[in-house]
Amino acid sequence: MSLKPVEKPVIHEVGLRDGLQAEKQVIPTATKLAWCEQLIAAQVDVLQIGSFVNPDKMPQMADTDELFRRLNSVPHPGVTLSGLVLNEKGLERALACGVELVCMGVSASDTHSQKNTGMSTAEAQRRIIAIAQAAVKAGKQVQVSVQSAFGCGFEGKIPDERVLGIVRAYLDAGLVNISLADTAGHAHPTQVTRLFGELFKLQPDAKCACHFHDTYGLGMANMYAALALGVRSFETSFGGLGGCPFTKLAAGNVATEDFVHGLQRVGMRGDIQLSVLLGLAREVGTTFGRDLPGRVHKAGALTY
Amino acid sequence: MSLKPVEKPVIHEVGLRDGLQAEKQVIPTATKLAWCEQLIAAQVDVLQIGSFVNPDKMPQMADTDELFRRLNSVPHPGVTLSGLVLNEKGLERALACGVELVCMGVSASDTHSQKNTGMSTAEAQRRIIAIAQAAVKAGKQVQVSVQSAFGCGFEGKIPDERVLGIVRAYLDAGLVNISLADTAGHAHPTQVTRLFGELFKLQPDAKCACHFHDTYGLGMANMYAALALGVRSFETSFGGLGGCPFTKLAAGNVATEDFVHGLQRVGMRGDIQLSVLLGLAREVGTTFGRDLPGRVHKAGALTY
Repeated sequence: MSLKPVEKPVIHEVGLRDGLQAEKQVIPTATKLAWCEQLIAAQVDVLQIGSFVNPDKMPQMADTDELFRRLNSVPHPGVTLSGLVLNEKGLERALACGVELVCMGVSASDTHSQKNTGMSTAEAQRRIIAIAQAAVKAGKQVQVSVQSAFGCGFEGKIPDERVLGIVRAYLDAGLVNISLADTAGHAHPTQVTRLFGELFKLQPDAKCACHFHDTYGLGMANMYAALALGVRSFETSFGGLGGCPFTKLAAGNVATEDFVHGLQRVGMRGDIQLSVLLGLAREVGTTFGRDLPGRVHKAGALTY
Repeated sequence: MSLKPVEKPVIHEVGLRDGLQAEKQVIPTATKLAWCEQLIAAQVDVLQIGSFVNPDKMPQMADTDELFRRLNSVPHPGVTLSGLVLNEKGLERALACGVELVCMGVSASDTHSQKNTGMSTAEAQRRIIAIAQAAVKAGKQVQVSVQSAFGCGFEGKIPDERVLGIVRAYLDAGLVNISLADTAGHAHPTQVTRLFGELFKLQPDAKCACHFHDTYGLGMANMYAALALGVRSFETSFGGLGGCPFTKLAAGNVATEDFVHGLQRVGMRGDIQLSVLLGLAREVGTTFGRDLPGRVHKAGALTY
C-alpha cells in the first residue's frame, strides 16, 4: 500500500468543466480560450476543457469540440488536454476533436446515476467500461471515476463496498487510472484515508486521482489526507468555482491556486506559475461578479 | 510522543473575543449574553468571553468584566469560561470577575509583539510568564500561547527555534497547557505536524491547543494535522468570524460549527448541540449583514 505522498502531485484543472457547467451564465468561446491560455501559461498538468454532453441539455458546454480543435492547433507543451465523456456519442466527439485524456465516470449512487444519466449504477458501469476500453483501443489516455464515492446528496451514505465494487470492475477491465470523486462534498479525511487505503490494497500501483467539493468545509483537509496516502492527481477548479448541477447541494471544488499555494509552501510544484493562477481567479470572479470561494487570490500569495 | 488523536477534542469557542475584536461594530452586552447562552446550551467545552484590554483601545471588549460577572451569576454546567489577559492589570480584572481559565500569550514575532504589546518577544515572555504564575497561584486554570507561531504577516517566516524557545520557557516555568496560534494564517499541515511533534518531544504529556486562521485556505487541514498528532484543544470561532487587528492580514478562524460537524461525522463529540451552533452562526451573519465564511451553516448539516 502506498502511504507516502508522491513527489510531484498532478494538478488537473477542472474549472472549465465542473466550474462552468454549474453556472447559468454561458461564457463565450473566446473568453474560455483566453482562460485556457492562462492555464497553459501557468503550466497546470492537465486541463479539462469541457464535457461532451448534449448541448441542448447544457449550453455552457456546447463549444467543447471547438475548444479542443482550437487548442490542439496551438502548442501546449507540458499540458494534457482532458474532456469528460458521458456516452458513446461523447466518445466519438472526443476522438474526432483530439482529446488527449478521456475522462468518464460511474456514480456509486443509483439515484444520482439515474438523474445524471438515466441509467442505474450497474448499467452505467457496463457502458462506461466498454467506452473506456474503446478509448484505450483508440490510443487515448483514460481516467475512470467513481462519482458520489463519499456520500450522495440524495441517498446520503454510500457504503464503501459499492465504491469498491466499481473500482474492482475497473481494475478487472484493466483500467488503473481511477478517480474517487466527492461529488456532493460529503467526504471526511478519515473516510478518504480508509477508501483510498482499500483501493491501494486492491491495486498497489493504481494511479489514483481525487476530486473534492468544499460543501462542508473539509475540501482541503480531504486533499491532504489523499496526498498523505499516495494519491497522485488532484482535480481542482480556479477560484474554487464549481458545484454539480445534478446533485442536490454542492459547493465549489477546492481552489486550484489555494492547493498550489499550499504545495509551494513546502517546496513542491514550484514549476507552476502561481501568479498567473491568481490573476485568473480574480478575472473569473470579476466575470461572474461575485466573490469566489478561493482564499489566496484575495489574500495574495505568501512569498517567503 | 503522542501520535494518536485524543478521544474527546476540546472545543474552545473564541468568537466572542477573536471574532468580535476584529469587527468595527460594537455588539451590545445583551446580544453577547444571548450568544453566550446559546453557546452554553450548545455545550462547547470552553467559552472565551472577551479580552481584558484597555477599553479605550478596543471598545468591542469594554464589557468583558461585566459579561463574566453576569455569566458567573447563572449556572453554566460543563462549560469553562475563559478570558484573554494581556498584562498585570488584565490579570487583576480577570481575578476580580471570576475568570475560570486565564489565557495569555507571547508572540514569536518581535514586530507583532511590539505592535500588539509595545514589548519585544523577550520582554513579553518574562512578563507573561510572571503573570501566568500569579494566575496559577491564584488557583486559576491557565493556558499560555505562542502567537504568530507559524509565520507572521510582518516578518514572514518564524523559525521553529523561536517558537520552541518560548515553549521551553513555559515548560521551565511549569506551564504545560500550551497553545500554538497561527495568528496570521500562514501555517501548513506539514509545519503543524513538525512543530507540535517537537513540542511533544519536549513534554510528552503537554496539554496542547491550536488556533488557526483560514487566510490561505489551510485552516481546516491544519486542524486535522493537529488532531492526528494528539493536540487536545481546538480554538474556533462561530461562523468562522475573526481575524487579528494587530497583524497585517488574517481571515477568520476555522468555524466552530464546521469543525464540530466534521467530528460528528466520525462519531466524535455527539454531545455538542450542532443545531444550536448552526442557528447562532446564521444569527451572527445576520447581525453583521454579511456572509460569514463557515460552510455548514449555509449548506445545512448532514444527518446520516
